[in-house]
Amino acid sequence: MIQLDDQQRAAQAWFRQLRNDIWAMLEQLEDEGQAPGEAGRFEKRVWDRTDHSGGEGGGGEMGVMKGRVFEKAGVNISTVFGEFNPDFAKQINGAAEDPRFFATGISLVIHPVNPLVPAVHMNTRMLVTTKRWFGGGVDLNPALPDADETAAFHAAVKATCDAHNPGYYPAHSKWAEDYFWVPHRNRHRGVGGIFYDHLNSGDWAADFAYTQAVGRCFLETYPKLVRAKMHQDYTPEQRAEQLRYRGLYAEFNLVYDRGTTFGLKTGGNTDAILMSLPPHARWD
Amino acid sequence: MIQLDDQQRAAQAWFRQLRNDIWAMLEQLEDEGQAPGEAGRFEKRVWDRTDHSGGEGGGGEMGVMKGRVFEKAGVNISTVFGEFNPDFAKQINGAAEDPRFFATGISLVIHPVNPLVPAVHMNTRMLVTTKRWFGGGVDLNPALPDADETAAFHAAVKATCDAHNPGYYPAHSKWAEDYFWVPHRNRHRGVGGIFYDHLNSGDWAADFAYTQAVGRCFLETYPKLVRAKMHQDYTPEQRAEQLRYRGLYAEFNLVYDRGTTFGLKTGGNTDAILMSLPPHARWD
Repeated sequence: MIQLDDQQRAAQAWFRQLRNDIWAMLEQLEDEGQAPGEAGRFEKRVWDRTDHSGGEGGGGEMGVMKGRVFEKAGVNISTVFGEFNPDFAKQINGAAEDPRFFATGISLVIHPVNPLVPAVHMNTRMLVTTKRWFGGGVDLNPALPDADETAAFHAAVKATCDAHNPGYYPAHSKWAEDYFWVPHRNRHRGVGGIFYDHLNSGDWAADFAYTQAVGRCFLETYPKLVRAKMHQDYTPEQRAEQLRYRGLYAEFNLVYDRGTTFGLKTGGNTDAILMSLPPHARWD
Repeated sequence: MIQLDDQQRAAQAWFRQLRNDIWAMLEQLEDEGQAPGEAGRFEKRVWDRTDHSGGEGGGGEMGVMKGRVFEKAGVNISTVFGEFNPDFAKQINGAAEDPRFFATGISLVIHPVNPLVPAVHMNTRMLVTTKRWFGGGVDLNPALPDADETAAFHAAVKATCDAHNPGYYPAHSKWAEDYFWVPHRNRHRGVGGIFYDHLNSGDWAADFAYTQAVGRCFLETYPKLVRAKMHQDYTPEQRAEQLRYRGLYAEFNLVYDRGTTFGLKTGGNTDAILMSLPPHARWD
């Protein structure tokens, strides 16, 4: 293992702690489920990465749970490092001069069973090249949008942002609005949230605190949205709408999502990358 | 409507005739189905295209059938023309000098209900820029590959190719092998077939005859493969395997297929482009 500096160690430890807390939160919701079947539990799979340079490249821990509340929940952490290949290095902030990089982060996608309960996506990460920054975001993906739920989600995210910088919510929610636009469907994937990248205000501790707050915001807000609807009845038509919405979700990830398309085309860990895909989807 | 020359008119008429014959063949198979429900019938939707230049741009006819033998069969024809936008023109054979183009063709994707019956994809087309050529192919996509079935399919395709040029089957089956490789899954989509593009041997009539033969080969071969298995029982596990295979099919089309990704990102007819996506898919 390479030597990490204090900031790298602190970020890595935070993402692991957050992963543990999120697993516990989601497993608790599984315990509260009333649908037939056992409460789901996360299964962990550890993977190692060989770097492009041939040396060690870090790795990650995938966690997938298939339960009675969550049809498929994937919550992964990874810490990877090495050297970008020269073509790719040119596209990365601060890597053109020196291809060495380090990245540590968490990513999750949750597809609930009940079509009334919103799916959600969150990821946050710290990147180090010759530069150093945070990126990430959280966005809500209801198959059947509900104005009150959307407002509550945005209010929680905005409060989190505002506590750090009043400019963050306007800028980062606009970024999400642009990022999750699906041109060929003339609509958005989901009802928004925040998205940010290359965050380096010059105050590392403040940027780290913001990234931690985004994770905590998810941890506190999402279970409220789930509990509000997880025991509600739904119709076969609503289930069909959910499966069609997941088709759109898969289209966005496979056609447009930078992490997905980049990862697949450059030999990333396919299972970890495609964890985001829905368990069942429909196109009809 | 623009004035077509004799070759353009002949190709367009052929693709329409082939579409009619394929619709009739597939509807006949629906009549032979023994599963509950009515025999499916194609529904036609006509669409018009406005060219990049603002002028008329041709259009097409989508045909989708949802039946008891075929969960989703899409068989489309289109004839489009106009001017490529300047950036795109550079990438197209013969269009850098003059952006005007004409294209006429047929495309189909068939996803059967029964997981033992192979899915199939076929498309053939004639393109005209400052150059003029044919392209297309046909490839078999069984969820549960069967060596005898694969051999029978390849034998029929090879016989078709050999009747025109002994070099076609080796070259065009290799092209399909390369094209349908899915790197992130370390496997192929399907069990192959043929793929060809920029076919201009200098003898237009011969190239047209080959393209017609590929269409006829599909028309004669596919119903044999369907009838061999359409009444066989299958297990829930086999159905699950089929839905997972369709996940791979969707991944290939959305991440790698040139027609799909190009079409979606440049304002093509989304419904016609995404006709290829499976009715149901699984990722779990």
